[in-house]
Amino acid sequence: MTDRIILKNTTETIIRFSEVDSMAVVWHGNYVKYLEDGREAFGKQYGLGYLDVYRHNIMTPVVELSLNYKTYLNYGDEIIIETGLVDTLAAKIIFNYSIYRKSDHCLVLTARSVQVFVDKEGILQLTNPPFFTEWKEKLGLNTGES
Amino acid sequence: MTDRIILKNTTETIIRFSEVDSMAVVWHGNYVKYLEDGREAFGKQYGLGYLDVYRHNIMTPVVELSLNYKTYLNYGDEIIIETGLVDTLAAKIIFNYSIYRKSDHCLVLTARSVQVFVDKEGILQLTNPPFFTEWKEKLGLNTGES
Amino acid sequence: MTDRIILKNTTETIIRFSEVDSMAVVWHGNYVKYLEDGREAFGKQYGLGYLDVYRHNIMTPVVELSLNYKTYLNYGDEIIIETGLVDTLAAKIIFNYSIYRKSDHCLVLTARSVQVFVDKEGILQLTNPPFFTEWKEKLGLNTGES
Amino acid sequence: MTDRIILKNTTETIIRFSEVDSMAVVWHGNYVKYLEDGREAFGKQYGLGYLDVYRHNIMTPVVELSLNYKTYLNYGDEIIIETGLVDTLAAKIIFNYSIYRKSDHCLVLTARSVQVFVDKEGILQLTNPPFFTEWKEKLGLNTGES
Repeated sequence: MTDRIILKNTTETIIRFSEVDSMAVVWHGNYVKYLEDGREAFGKQYGLGYLDVYRHNIMTPVVELSLNYKTYLNYGDEIIIETGLVDTLAAKIIFNYSIYRKSDHCLVLTARSVQVFVDKEGILQLTNPPFFTEWKEKLGLNTGES
Repeated sequence: MTDRIILKNTTETIIRFSEVDSMAVVWHGNYVKYLEDGREAFGKQYGLGYLDVYRHNIMTPVVELSLNYKTYLNYGDEIIIETGLVDTLAAKIIFNYSIYRKSDHCLVLTARSVQVFVDKEGILQLTNPPFFTEWKEKLGLNTGES
Repeated sequence: MTDRIILKNTTETIIRFSEVDSMAVVWHGNYVKYLEDGREAFGKQYGLGYLDVYRHNIMTPVVELSLNYKTYLNYGDEIIIETGLVDTLAAKIIFNYSIYRKSDHCLVLTARSVQVFVDKEGILQLTNPPFFTEWKEKLGLNTGES
Repeated sequence: MTDRIILKNTTETIIRFSEVDSMAVVWHGNYVKYLEDGREAFGKQYGLGYLDVYRHNIMTPVVELSLNYKTYLNYGDEIIIETGLVDTLAAKIIFNYSIYRKSDHCLVLTARSVQVFVDKEGILQLTNPPFFTEWKEKLGLNTGES
């Protein structure tokens, strides 16, 4: 089963000295920041940023995260982060990510995150909150309603 | 298919203020540090620490990492990190992790990491390096040799 | 003018792999975490932790921080953090810090932080908030009142 | 005594979600990263980057760092980092920094760092290494030689 990507953002960042470990490569945990950079750039482009969502008294915690490391990144490397929204009717936001080194377009990492909807009291939302269904409709995405 | 755990370490840590995000819970990327704490505590107990391995001119980069978040952690929470070595004959080190909140022993996170063996020139080792086979033998673990 | 220390805490921590940079020494910015560890251990011992203060609707942001690096720390080093409260009648909390490597008790860093009192609306408190004066009295410290 | 700035770089960055603490403002320790961003942008502009220096078998560890916090930064804020090289004949690199919020050009932080020259064996260089004197000459800066 392959994820079907229905919306995509591409953004860039550069590796900081403080993100590199004693092997002179990016410490593997720091990639989680680049994925968040990608997700937020996606949110900015399509109006689904952290603050956009929070305005509806909804939070979208990450409940699953998986990362596959293909090669290394060094200090000063420029990277391209591709963040794709995965098609799903479940009350979830699923993203697929690919990170490329800019100089040679080498694939460095693929990743996938699953977020759920939780209200201010911390209650898990079992169906898509209204603002999200409206957001999908506005962008012409499948909301599961005929 | 369930992972079979053949060696286990249990260690503890406490959540720092700087690890908590604006939702007042641990930022999801910081769990990667706790997993590394667990892995290194395992290494210390059984003689498989980062420096033990490095002495053999071998590095063990993480190539796969998956995390499943069950609940939240707050500033000051004490946590228990259980790190289990998974039985495999492949030239890999696979760990399973469970993180519990100490106060109520609530399961907070499960995770799994896969590491490979790479030499100083960055060449992937397709079979277990000698020091690792010896380490397994010393601990009475299955090395795949009869 | 030397700071007069009126209360002191000593705590310990250990250097994480992710805190070391490509020079194989602790990245200089990570020391700010160890200072916060020291401050919070102080707060725990004397009842002046971040949550103790927050309960009075007061926050104590750091407004000045200075660090003097004496030598390096490596991955796995155990350190001793000494945190001393500086005598002052101003509406401030001033700490002095010394970090030592545990193995040889070598002085690694000295530092100093200044915190002020701010209420929930973000208004700077020009005099010590009542809870802080009471805290000083309880511990037999000089409150500036005869 | 005021520092005399003889070369200046201006760069920009944006506050990440993971850099904000539970008070919804940038955690005070994260500013050290922005200062490093400024220093590296300076190095890129004038040919004094970390890798430029390292090529001469010299490292330039930070030995003093002081920060003065003027106001807060929130998630998503864009900031301007001004990094100025301070005039000195000592065998040191001294930078002054000002960080501004871009939206209203409000001054957020001032800081100062002192770096020394250390060779590969970790020996402190008591006079400016040749590459640094040449770098100063090339840029028309005072090298202390008539």
